[in-house]
Amino acid sequence: MRVTRREFSKLGAMGLAARMLPVVSAGAQSGERKVGYCVIGLGTIADHFMRGVQGSSNSKITGLVSGHRDKAERIAAQYGVPKSSIYSYEDMDKFRDNKMIDAVYVALPNSMHAEYTIRSAKAGKHVLCEKPMSTTVSEAEAMIAACRDAKVQLMIAYRLHYDPLHLKAVKLIKDGALGKVQTINGAFGFDASPTAWRLNKALAGGGSLFDVGIYVVNACRYLTGEEPVKFTAVTSTIDQDGRFSTMEENVSWTMKFPSGVLATGSSTYGAQMPGYFKVFASKGWMEMSSAYGYDGAKLRASFWGGEKGSPHMEIDEASTEKDPVQFTREADHFSGCVLNNKVPKSSGEEGLRDMKYIEEIYAAAGTVQG
Amino acid sequence: MRVTRREFSKLGAMGLAARMLPVVSAGAQSGERKVGYCVIGLGTIADHFMRGVQGSSNSKITGLVSGHRDKAERIAAQYGVPKSSIYSYEDMDKFRDNKMIDAVYVALPNSMHAEYTIRSAKAGKHVLCEKPMSTTVSEAEAMIAACRDAKVQLMIAYRLHYDPLHLKAVKLIKDGALGKVQTINGAFGFDASPTAWRLNKALAGGGSLFDVGIYVVNACRYLTGEEPVKFTAVTSTIDQDGRFSTMEENVSWTMKFPSGVLATGSSTYGAQMPGYFKVFASKGWMEMSSAYGYDGAKLRASFWGGEKGSPHMEIDEASTEKDPVQFTREADHFSGCVLNNKVPKSSGEEGLRDMKYIEEIYAAAGTVQG
Repeated sequence: MRVTRREFSKLGAMGLAARMLPVVSAGAQSGERKVGYCVIGLGTIADHFMRGVQGSSNSKITGLVSGHRDKAERIAAQYGVPKSSIYSYEDMDKFRDNKMIDAVYVALPNSMHAEYTIRSAKAGKHVLCEKPMSTTVSEAEAMIAACRDAKVQLMIAYRLHYDPLHLKAVKLIKDGALGKVQTINGAFGFDASPTAWRLNKALAGGGSLFDVGIYVVNACRYLTGEEPVKFTAVTSTIDQDGRFSTMEENVSWTMKFPSGVLATGSSTYGAQMPGYFKVFASKGWMEMSSAYGYDGAKLRASFWGGEKGSPHMEIDEASTEKDPVQFTREADHFSGCVLNNKVPKSSGEEGLRDMKYIEEIYAAAGTVQG
Repeated sequence: MRVTRREFSKLGAMGLAARMLPVVSAGAQSGERKVGYCVIGLGTIADHFMRGVQGSSNSKITGLVSGHRDKAERIAAQYGVPKSSIYSYEDMDKFRDNKMIDAVYVALPNSMHAEYTIRSAKAGKHVLCEKPMSTTVSEAEAMIAACRDAKVQLMIAYRLHYDPLHLKAVKLIKDGALGKVQTINGAFGFDASPTAWRLNKALAGGGSLFDVGIYVVNACRYLTGEEPVKFTAVTSTIDQDGRFSTMEENVSWTMKFPSGVLATGSSTYGAQMPGYFKVFASKGWMEMSSAYGYDGAKLRASFWGGEKGSPHMEIDEASTEKDPVQFTREADHFSGCVLNNKVPKSSGEEGLRDMKYIEEIYAAAGTVQG
């Protein structure tokens, strides 16, 4: 395929030029170069990520952004990050000139994802951003545009897209082992601490659907390989202890997919709700429980091996992954994309879709969020 | 409490007089008398019931109604029913004068429940009717009125209202062991044979929601002890093999209860969908799988023993019930009600409520049934 200079410029404006370029980055010597990550926000999930990166062959921690200098210096020492690569939220943009930093990992509260993704992109850094991508569809679109304009890669940190047991579940469906999928049920939630930023709508953007329900929405999509087209939903708040003054405690919803697959989902910040999905299909069923955690998932399935009446197959498999391996796989993937100029599997567009569906679910419930 | 004759007549019209009467029936000598059942319809579930009755201390099979005389005679011989107590659907009403028959068990396709309940009541027989009670709310109301007018008891055969493991689940919630219930998920369905009466809307009244989804609706009600007030729903048909020309293949729905508890439900005639419920609450969770079958149910739960942080409790209990014990318990209960002039726990009013909710769910899905 030949592309003229003019055509190439046009492709560039569409964000496609980069994907057509031969691999010329410093990362071409695979195994030689590691992508340097600056971690923005040093909370719990950042800790998982940094430990995960230690197991990655193509990633390393090379910078930190934090509002707590002491904490940042302690962590910097732990990961071999020079003090000169520690930034505050205010002076973060200076990392533009830091050659050790190729990419950022945005591990901030949801409402800050858009701002820090866009600032990082403008500073020329590739962006790995935690889910939910943002708190609104328009923010997500602005994030995609900023990364496109800056010619940097954008990946949303959907750990489970890279998890072998989830990939096995997807493959069982794709290969037709279960027959025609008809219905999926799923849920994920927990009893949130009153002090959590998650219960502050200004920081979280909305309720449990943004933080944990999103796993169920996303799982239904990767399990079916389809995009939902119809939504119904309902929300409620039972506890009157003041925790839920700005958001709902519970949300349950249905989604309909183009093939006719129906899904139900639930999430909560007021109950113990171990994450799960169940897939019901013409030749059998499959379920994963503790489906969305960092490890400990189990996949069970029962289906006809061939046509109905053929020998019955049973799967009962526990994940052998141990935290923080999911983060290692995530970093491996994004670093590979950065080094080889490839669009990540869980791209910004993938994250944007979930933001659209979350908005659809809240709209169906008559609850305006964001 | 004193009741005048005039007041008593009024109560009679309201169907309440019977409950106030002293026990004067022949059943007063408990353990002496067995309630005689005429089984109407000799399909699969009737077989379970008749075997169940053999284990009952206060019930016996004393009549059969069938369109197949040969089959009826074979079964009559098996259960010691005299040939004179075998009826056809046409001449069934003659059993009015058969003193051996106190009650009927209506085990016909859904669309025939109303007619045969009303004919039996008019013949002076107490009625144990399979679920779903009917195919429409108005039929269910007519059934209740007919039994009230005839001063006979009406029970809907909700087996699980009498099942020890389900009662244990209800008690765990009622006692507060799980804390505040926030969300319930449930499903039940199977891949229905193209020749089943269930796929004939004229006989079934509607789709899988009537036959199997009803278990999920009912379970959410007895688990919470509340009546749902808001519904959303969606239906679909994936298989284009002609099976689903008169009804949908899949239905999924949400229900909201007055306290704020949210529930999701799914049912299908196109997939392997082992029945389950999951309850998510502030102090823990509970789930029953293979929840709606004749035996084999397992209850699992995990919750704080006291306040949060107190010792953790785990329940992992398999039902010791073996089919047809659920039917024995059901017959025991109804016979006790007949003998002692008591309203059954799973009364006609209980069945009517589910019919209303089924209509609400189909209405929410934009699908008119019945």
